[in-house]
Amino acid sequence: MSQPNYKLIYFNARGRAEHIRFIFAYAGIEYQDERIPREKWPELKKRMPFGIVPVLEIDGRRVDQSNAIARYLANKYGLAGKDEWEAMQCDALVDALGDLKQVLWQLRTEQDPIKKEERKAKLMRETIPYYLSKFEKIVSENNGLSVGSGITWCDFVFAVSLENFEAIFGKSSLDYYPAMKSLKNRIYALPSIAEWVARRPHTES
Amino acid sequence: MSQPNYKLIYFNARGRAEHIRFIFAYAGIEYQDERIPREKWPELKKRMPFGIVPVLEIDGRRVDQSNAIARYLANKYGLAGKDEWEAMQCDALVDALGDLKQVLWQLRTEQDPIKKEERKAKLMRETIPYYLSKFEKIVSENNGLSVGSGITWCDFVFAVSLENFEAIFGKSSLDYYPAMKSLKNRIYALPSIAEWVARRPHTES
Repeated sequence: MSQPNYKLIYFNARGRAEHIRFIFAYAGIEYQDERIPREKWPELKKRMPFGIVPVLEIDGRRVDQSNAIARYLANKYGLAGKDEWEAMQCDALVDALGDLKQVLWQLRTEQDPIKKEERKAKLMRETIPYYLSKFEKIVSENNGLSVGSGITWCDFVFAVSLENFEAIFGKSSLDYYPAMKSLKNRIYALPSIAEWVARRPHTES
Repeated sequence: MSQPNYKLIYFNARGRAEHIRFIFAYAGIEYQDERIPREKWPELKKRMPFGIVPVLEIDGRRVDQSNAIARYLANKYGLAGKDEWEAMQCDALVDALGDLKQVLWQLRTEQDPIKKEERKAKLMRETIPYYLSKFEKIVSENNGLSVGSGITWCDFVFAVSLENFEAIFGKSSLDYYPAMKSLKNRIYALPSIAEWVARRPHTES
């Protein structure tokens, strides 16, 4: 059966699309990696289903929402766990990480400088350690993977987020979370992922 | 095959659990509908996987994240569309609605009264009509359902959200969106849902 024609539409950034690119790389699936120049976005935005990207075109049909796209591809290419229970564990962990990223994002949009510092302090002292220590426990009790005995799209979501985390908070920021760090390194050492990372466009985020 | 033993843990509210209760009602599955008294929450919070509810116990194993739970049950009880494409459409629409709810939620937490009014005005004039007119188009072009030719968990997510929408913005607020209103009414008229709604505890939200 021939593969569908895939086009992934996003900015020239890792952002909310990189875990999808990891799935394609790992599964060895050809796709068009279309990167919208920022100046063209206001016009292109109107043509996206809900005005957001990433959008995946599958044989010309467009769908949005990064996790809906990733889950679909993960199911198709054997990266969603071995059964429905594991698929749900992936979903729950991805959404838990999403909750943490939401808090980080809200900090960026806080305009009051005093409140911003207060929120940042709480984040560093409470929220981030709360989540990371829970993730650490899950991964270390599960032999270094997030869910089940094989690699899942959840591992890719973690790996990509942890790369960003190190970029923001420094290379030593994961030292307290050795299982998370080792999960990240393990994913980036997969030949297909390493090959992708070596040839992908260099971007800040 | 006997059904698993389900316990759904949430507050005495519809909130992020009601679409899960709709799935159970529609599928005719027995479950324990545990409603945490607010005063017990600080203590119970510590015992939840990530400090949030709803949590579903399946034969004693706990999982959180309302949409991960709902998707799992929807897959199990035939409410996730007829194929992977429809399952993805459900996921994408649920997340699009989630984006809108996120904006509404951010409004509630805005403390500056002037900014709050500005944001509310933008929401009423732009954001809500933007999303609702897109949902309206999708549902009206799809014969009154959100995805495919059968009822999906996405319809339940919409129905529950639209009930809240009417509670907040008034009974006539959906008059401009007849397909959405009719989707909501159709779901609430399903015998299993009507039976649940008649006997569920009355709550404000």
